[in-house]
Amino acid sequence: MVKVGVVGYGVIGLRLAAGVARQEDMELVGVADVGLTLSVRALAERGMPYDFYAVVPEKRDELEAAGVKVSGTVEELIQKCDVILDATPAGVGEKNKALYEKYGKKAVFQGGESTSVADVFFHGYANYEEGLGKQFLKLTSCNTTGLIRAVDCVDRAVGVDNVMITIIRRVADPGDYHRGLTNALKVDTVPSHQASDLMLIMPHIKATGVLVHTPVTHGHIISTNIKPKKPVTRDEVLEMFNAHPRIRVVRIKDGFQGNAALFRYARDMGNPHSDMYEIAVFEETVEVFEGHIIFAFNVPQEAVVIPESLDAVRAAMEMQTDRLEGVGMTNKYLNLR
Amino acid sequence: MVKVGVVGYGVIGLRLAAGVARQEDMELVGVADVGLTLSVRALAERGMPYDFYAVVPEKRDELEAAGVKVSGTVEELIQKCDVILDATPAGVGEKNKALYEKYGKKAVFQGGESTSVADVFFHGYANYEEGLGKQFLKLTSCNTTGLIRAVDCVDRAVGVDNVMITIIRRVADPGDYHRGLTNALKVDTVPSHQASDLMLIMPHIKATGVLVHTPVTHGHIISTNIKPKKPVTRDEVLEMFNAHPRIRVVRIKDGFQGNAALFRYARDMGNPHSDMYEIAVFEETVEVFEGHIIFAFNVPQEAVVIPESLDAVRAAMEMQTDRLEGVGMTNKYLNLR
Amino acid sequence: MVKVGVVGYGVIGLRLAAGVARQEDMELVGVADVGLTLSVRALAERGMPYDFYAVVPEKRDELEAAGVKVSGTVEELIQKCDVILDATPAGVGEKNKALYEKYGKKAVFQGGESTSVADVFFHGYANYEEGLGKQFLKLTSCNTTGLIRAVDCVDRAVGVDNVMITIIRRVADPGDYHRGLTNALKVDTVPSHQASDLMLIMPHIKATGVLVHTPVTHGHIISTNIKPKKPVTRDEVLEMFNAHPRIRVVRIKDGFQGNAALFRYARDMGNPHSDMYEIAVFEETVEVFEGHIIFAFNVPQEAVVIPESLDAVRAAMEMQTDRLEGVGMTNKYLNLR
Amino acid sequence: MVKVGVVGYGVIGLRLAAGVARQEDMELVGVADVGLTLSVRALAERGMPYDFYAVVPEKRDELEAAGVKVSGTVEELIQKCDVILDATPAGVGEKNKALYEKYGKKAVFQGGESTSVADVFFHGYANYEEGLGKQFLKLTSCNTTGLIRAVDCVDRAVGVDNVMITIIRRVADPGDYHRGLTNALKVDTVPSHQASDLMLIMPHIKATGVLVHTPVTHGHIISTNIKPKKPVTRDEVLEMFNAHPRIRVVRIKDGFQGNAALFRYARDMGNPHSDMYEIAVFEETVEVFEGHIIFAFNVPQEAVVIPESLDAVRAAMEMQTDRLEGVGMTNKYLNLR
Repeated sequence: MVKVGVVGYGVIGLRLAAGVARQEDMELVGVADVGLTLSVRALAERGMPYDFYAVVPEKRDELEAAGVKVSGTVEELIQKCDVILDATPAGVGEKNKALYEKYGKKAVFQGGESTSVADVFFHGYANYEEGLGKQFLKLTSCNTTGLIRAVDCVDRAVGVDNVMITIIRRVADPGDYHRGLTNALKVDTVPSHQASDLMLIMPHIKATGVLVHTPVTHGHIISTNIKPKKPVTRDEVLEMFNAHPRIRVVRIKDGFQGNAALFRYARDMGNPHSDMYEIAVFEETVEVFEGHIIFAFNVPQEAVVIPESLDAVRAAMEMQTDRLEGVGMTNKYLNLR
Repeated sequence: MVKVGVVGYGVIGLRLAAGVARQEDMELVGVADVGLTLSVRALAERGMPYDFYAVVPEKRDELEAAGVKVSGTVEELIQKCDVILDATPAGVGEKNKALYEKYGKKAVFQGGESTSVADVFFHGYANYEEGLGKQFLKLTSCNTTGLIRAVDCVDRAVGVDNVMITIIRRVADPGDYHRGLTNALKVDTVPSHQASDLMLIMPHIKATGVLVHTPVTHGHIISTNIKPKKPVTRDEVLEMFNAHPRIRVVRIKDGFQGNAALFRYARDMGNPHSDMYEIAVFEETVEVFEGHIIFAFNVPQEAVVIPESLDAVRAAMEMQTDRLEGVGMTNKYLNLR
Repeated sequence: MVKVGVVGYGVIGLRLAAGVARQEDMELVGVADVGLTLSVRALAERGMPYDFYAVVPEKRDELEAAGVKVSGTVEELIQKCDVILDATPAGVGEKNKALYEKYGKKAVFQGGESTSVADVFFHGYANYEEGLGKQFLKLTSCNTTGLIRAVDCVDRAVGVDNVMITIIRRVADPGDYHRGLTNALKVDTVPSHQASDLMLIMPHIKATGVLVHTPVTHGHIISTNIKPKKPVTRDEVLEMFNAHPRIRVVRIKDGFQGNAALFRYARDMGNPHSDMYEIAVFEETVEVFEGHIIFAFNVPQEAVVIPESLDAVRAAMEMQTDRLEGVGMTNKYLNLR
Repeated sequence: MVKVGVVGYGVIGLRLAAGVARQEDMELVGVADVGLTLSVRALAERGMPYDFYAVVPEKRDELEAAGVKVSGTVEELIQKCDVILDATPAGVGEKNKALYEKYGKKAVFQGGESTSVADVFFHGYANYEEGLGKQFLKLTSCNTTGLIRAVDCVDRAVGVDNVMITIIRRVADPGDYHRGLTNALKVDTVPSHQASDLMLIMPHIKATGVLVHTPVTHGHIISTNIKPKKPVTRDEVLEMFNAHPRIRVVRIKDGFQGNAALFRYARDMGNPHSDMYEIAVFEETVEVFEGHIIFAFNVPQEAVVIPESLDAVRAAMEMQTDRLEGVGMTNKYLNLR
């Protein structure tokens, strides 16, 4: 059993903890955070399903007064683990790295950190092998994670020459009060970082991207244009996507009209935290046009990175040395296909 | 064991089913719906945790092709039940009533139906006794249900003379594509139906209300002004609310900044379907001003009516004849306080 | 002086009237509508700058009671005009056509009508010549009008092989209460009608498009990918756009961050009705990538079709028989470059 | 002719300039700002209808390169004026005060400044006399300005004992990218500052208020509950409001359904910058209930303070010493009733 800790118990951290808890070959040692956020209060009201470690030991009394049992300090958590999933806000992971080095532990950082923090910039499906045995891995961000799933899927089948995307980005998560946009679309400079990040992970592919922020909270939509190396039919594209355990093909005519429909579906499913791990390709948007594959898909920003983060644990700890065995184990425990 | 069926498996119906399933003294016989909605598809993907009955038998093949095992027709479901929770769209319940009468079954309708459909207009806390043994009960709508909880709570303690509210209404549920409002506030004629409905349930109280629709999906906020019959202090008001199993007192300074924060909290809690049954009073808004009690509270529109709907089953079936015993049993099984 | 009437005084109709009033070689005979909408009430409060003709003569008393002086019936208006700009809701124009035929008048329909209503599907810049002397012309819709401006601009310079777009569509206009979307992105089937319409106007070009509806009211954003027939540099593309009187090149770094910034700018300018006629290309999104021209631009949905509608009057009435002379006259009077 | 300068040419400043320019007994000397905002760029594109003075003289070259003719420095502007309308961001006015003192000029600050900056906290209708001859005046904020209009209107007729409001606040202005809220309602601590500010201006009235932020940009809605000192009928209340030059009574059934409808109406009117100076009471919300006057009204946040700001100039400069003469002159030039 690989011992895993989660540092940073926010939107991503709580989902990493839930994901680790479902992996039968991992043990969730505990989670750590700085203070009494809503997520930490919820942990107390749930009866402390995970052990909690305080990043700021001085807050112990305040935490315990609110019902949060404190099992120790974050350094104590680190010492008990083989590997840490660091889901702290962007920039903090870089500082935490010193602690992980101090105790000789491995760590997996999220997409908000600078790429230089890690030995390898990682995506479970695209470059699993490069993560094998590494000490520090950094995941791709939510949009990039979803995008690479789709591009890698096509690339392994017929080869990909280039990729042009338009990201229609959700601007905040449900419950966010610290950021937002009201009745406005916001345009970013081209190319967006997701295109650049894709090229870092898949250097044989050229990519560019337009990104427009929209005032919604449930899922990014990426309109995608892939130039494959070999001709391919629409049916073959659908077949590739249907065969991928982390890609869901849905139909607009069945009611999957957009990001909010997918959120509702995951919620109706009774999924933990109403989450969905898969990206969802809208079948009626898939088209082969002048040698390009066109399609649009949904990225559930809060949960999409969880599977690839668990893949990273597997690679770092060499739990599986084969790519498909590694991602397959994650899929099995997350019930993906 | 009282045998309960749910007719109409949408936003409310699926939550009624989940609520019934948690009542150890009720048996959920099954659920029924007209077709292949997202919620019904989710039922199939979940492995049919509830038996499904078809309202339109001709759709059996289409349903089964999509993985929805069909256990029979809606009439068959009705015959197997003691009482039906009807959560069909407004106006349909009235038509279904003929079926319930045909088989001599009791039924509980939701707030969208016209009040004349039922023998009694019902709220678990405010008029449980009037529902005892009745064949047809109609629940209050989501806002009215939450409002009456708070008003009844004060009324039983110190008496209430009149109530003046401003409802800041969410305009659609997450995932709704058939209705919406974009960058606009919409004002309704005064008084709003919630004030009129309150007076039907509590005829000794005078009420009026302003209602403004807002383009959000997570919870209504009701700004409330209650004129009590006896003087009361702010601390006494907070004590009343804190003692009520279906009222949660939350603090803005703890991060409960509004409806979206409460939605996120329920989601972080891992609650089924990310739901919250309680209304939530914002502590920093509670004030006694010139003999009036002022406060604002959140109404989680999708789940708030579930407890009172279960109370209605208890009253109709005379499972408990005492008000506090009846609502108390619902609370116990829903883990409310 | 060509005599012009506007039938349908709503979002588009009032802007057509304002546009006609600025053309020194046209006379605005009057406007017509069915009833007492907000726009018609505003006309009264403004002191009736345009003569008003009633579509429903029975409403004369109601209209005049509200201060709307009625100058006659819609049939009387038609008889006084050479050409009608029909801006009635989709489908109504088709019915009105019988009236225009009865009096032998020319008419220009808006994009919502079916293409079969007209002799020619028209865009001032792309196919002015085809509109010359025709009786019935139909304009392209707002997105298509803006898109064709940009595509035609490139096509006349270097030739265009194909076009792939992603339309990020505003879902309602400011003040709309009859339609809306709340916290949701909605995906349409590919290809969107704008791509198909482009191919009708420019049959030598192949086009496809993804369309996603977003809950905002100020301007569509179109992410565009044009495959030119000859190689072209980024500077050359910017030069083409800068030279076009109906295309504005703006910089994100100057504060033009998206559709709402452009709306504010037009409003700060003191433009009539806070309108902008030009599409606006975001300079930082212009890129040449693997032989494709990439860029994003804003379409001000309410006013963008006005110039091309005036071009249609010029073509239909053969006021100018040369394309650039025709559009140039419209530009001159609208102060475009 | 009183010489007026406007320092701070943003959302409020540009409207102050437009308002001053319409007062035939005032001369707009010029406007000043720190840099090349969209509003300043629009000034250049409009052909510099107002003289521009630079707050940061070092930016002269950059400004002039963008077409903004610079007529001098802000200190030069101040010296040429009798009184300054300071519409700089909150906190900056306090710093500018030293300049106004240096040159012995009068100044009117906006509602964002701290009340201590001024000799008097001012509202044209409620306390005009207190502003007479003062050097430094501070206006009430947008919501408070609108609220006091309505409360003062009732107070002068029948006396007001207390006021209880619920403000449904728009969270950003059209075009704002620096602030926003997405799919969330945000609740503030009671009482809101508008209630406290009302009591500063009208110390004989007690007030409290709930405030909820909503993700829209067009106008706040205030649900109001006024306890008058004498009994009053609904018709009398409507008569009072109808008689007030800065209050507009509108009907929901005429299409004035909320804040966005009023924005559209002002825009359809062709008003400069699509602005409306009046608050608008929704007639169908006016009710007398248990001795309280209930109603809801719209506050056009961008323009509502302009008339009272001009009143402040009149009071400070003693252009009119009588309250109704002063506000009446402002109304006359702004065409209010």
